[in-house]
Amino acid sequence: MAIFMDRHDLAGTSAEDIAEAHRRDLAVEDRYGVKFLTYWYDQRRGTAFCLIDAPSKEAAIAVHREAHGLIADTLVEVTEGA
Amino acid sequence: MAIFMDRHDLAGTSAEDIAEAHRRDLAVEDRYGVKFLTYWYDQRRGTAFCLIDAPSKEAAIAVHREAHGLIADTLVEVTEGA
Repeated sequence: MAIFMDRHDLAGTSAEDIAEAHRRDLAVEDRYGVKFLTYWYDQRRGTAFCLIDAPSKEAAIAVHREAHGLIADTLVEVTEGA
Repeated sequence: MAIFMDRHDLAGTSAEDIAEAHRRDLAVEDRYGVKFLTYWYDQRRGTAFCLIDAPSKEAAIAVHREAHGLIADTLVEVTEGA
């Protein structure tokens, strides 16, 4: 497993829409062995960041694709600092 | 206080350099009423994300400026999701 941070540019999306998309991720993540850990969003700009524990980048993408189709604009594998 | 997520593009920077920059942030953050909560980095691309509790965007930037001069490329106020 590895940790990934993604970023979505979702201008015009409400906090409730983003929360609903996240709930859909949680509903399907087990099928891909993925765990969406948390997310943050900036409602003014429509930027959302997801922190994801996944076996691969492809698995993380597959969850978003199946759950709601909102694929991230960027997705990078990260290491947590101190 | 508010939560901010920033992103640094630090290609060519080692994990140790990033850890040292973070230690310097922690050493000066109290002067600005800021708390650097955690960070993540992608060593291959040199991308680092800091999660910061700060009274203002300017205060968060001031800590990086004084600590090591590595100002973030982007900094957005965020809300933590579920």
